This record gives sequence, structure tokens and C-alpha cells, in this order.
Amino acid sequence: MARMRGAAAIALVVLTGGCRSGRDHSAGAAAAVWSADSAWAQTFARKDLAGYLSFVDSNATMHPPNAPAITGIAGIRGLIEGFLALPGLTGTWQPTTVVAARSGELAYSTGTYEMSYNDSTGARVTDRGKYLEVWRRQPDRSWKLITESFNADR
Amino acid sequence: MARMRGAAAIALVVLTGGCRSGRDHSAGAAAAVWSADSAWAQTFARKDLAGYLSFVDSNATMHPPNAPAITGIAGIRGLIEGFLALPGLTGTWQPTTVVAARSGELAYSTGTYEMSYNDSTGARVTDRGKYLEVWRRQPDRSWKLITESFNADR
Repeated sequence: MARMRGAAAIALVVLTGGCRSGRDHSAGAAAAVWSADSAWAQTFARKDLAGYLSFVDSNATMHPPNAPAITGIAGIRGLIEGFLALPGLTGTWQPTTVVAARSGELAYSTGTYEMSYNDSTGARVTDRGKYLEVWRRQPDRSWKLITESFNADR
Repeated sequence: MARMRGAAAIALVVLTGGCRSGRDHSAGAAAAVWSADSAWAQTFARKDLAGYLSFVDSNATMHPPNAPAITGIAGIRGLIEGFLALPGLTGTWQPTTVVAARSGELAYSTGTYEMSYNDSTGARVTDRGKYLEVWRRQPDRSWKLITESFNADR
């Protein structure tokens, strides 16, 4: 009995030590966010507004350049409708780095975007830049964007 | 012995279940990042370049508006030296939201900045905007910025 108690006590100490930081879920979470961000970029490329919004938390905040921050899905819908209405729009983005927390519910994605459209004179305008997004895992294990900032390279 | 084995087995199952998500360190981590971001803002306000850089990871990436991304402390030093050399510079920022992962090693901070300086004609220019930063806890439990994006409101 004494030896068994000792073995049990050792097992508990080892497991409690392991609990302090929890299991490392970062690799799986980062892969899931990479997939989500890539799929999200495709919704924009095909001008799928409903698909785009399905990746955005209802209380998300966006930081468009040269405009105030926008919080909430209604404002974000308006922002994206504005982009999608640009004449001759083509645009998408791709992640270059995704990092998730060990606990696996919070992650960021950063990468580059490119967007082209025709301005009011009909001239083709191309905007290239970079973005930083924060994603949170939902109760159903899907991921949604909770905040984003982006700006141009020039 | 049989009963002891049973008790030990139950204890192991309970602890393993608890380990799945780990303890929630998010509140303490968010408070620490709020303090770090606020202290970092003060280094910029007092034009303390060494103090500013002490909060930045050596491999951090910054996304300044209308310029390419900058990765690494040498490039970031150059960027900040450029800001600090602006005639009559005053500037700082303050967090409005900080969110940390349950695991307590990754967090983001978002808030607003204001910066004023004299342009080449001597006219006072004020730039107000917003930022999104990601912070990572270091082995010594201090926090450092690992990536940031910011842009103007106008």
C-alpha cells in the first residue's frame, strides 16, 4: 500500500506540473487559422459578401487606413460592400505567418494583400500592402476574425 | 491494492481532463500587457529610444503605413529614429482593449495614437490613428512586442 500511495503521489505531481501550462495546442490551431484565412481570402476574391462575413465575429473591429476604426458586423458589411463595388475590382491576400497560443483559442495571421480597380478616370489602380489579423476559436471550433489592421506599402 | 489502483486511476482521469484546457491565465496576462503597452508609450513620449527598443522582440515585424513591412530590431530602430527626429515631435498612444490567451503567453493590444510635428514649412501637423499590436511573454516573464500594424484615421 505504501508503495502504491507513493506511485500515485508521484503521478499526481507530474500531472499537476504538466497542467500548469496545459497541453500545447498551438500547432493545430495555427494550421486551422492558416486554412481559415486562406478560405476567407477566397471569399473576397470571388466577391462573396455573405461568405466573407461568415468568417467575421459579430463584434469584430477593423482598422481601415485613412478612416476611423469600425466595430460590429453592420459597419464591416458596409466597408466591404464599398470595396466590392469598386469598378473592375480584383483582390485577395495570403498569410505569410500564423502564430497561435498554446491554449489554442487565440491566434494571429499576418501577410500581404493586392487589390486592383479602375479609378474615376478609368485608370487601373493597384494597391499592395500588408495586414495583421487576430482570430478567436468559436465554441463550434470554427475560427472567426476579431480584429484586423492593414495598410499600403507605398 | 485493487481499491487503491481504482482511486489512482480516477485521480489521473480527472487531472487529465483538467489538463485539456489548462488553467486560465488570461486575466493576469492581459493586465501585464496593458501595463507594458502603457509603459512602452511613455518611452516614445519621452523620446527614449533605448527604452522603446527594450519592449521590442529582436525579430519583431512592424507595418508602418505607406512603407514596406520592417522585420528585425535594426530596421525598427531606424524607423523610430526617423519619427523621433521629426521637428517638434510630441506623440504617444494608449490601449483601449487588451486580450490574452488562456495559456497566458500571447496577447494583443489595440488602441489609439496621436502624434504632432512641424512639417518642412514649419506648419504643425497632427496625425491621429489606431494600432494593433501582438505581444509575447518572454522566458523572464516580461512581455515584448512581436508584431504591430498602425494607420491614420484620415
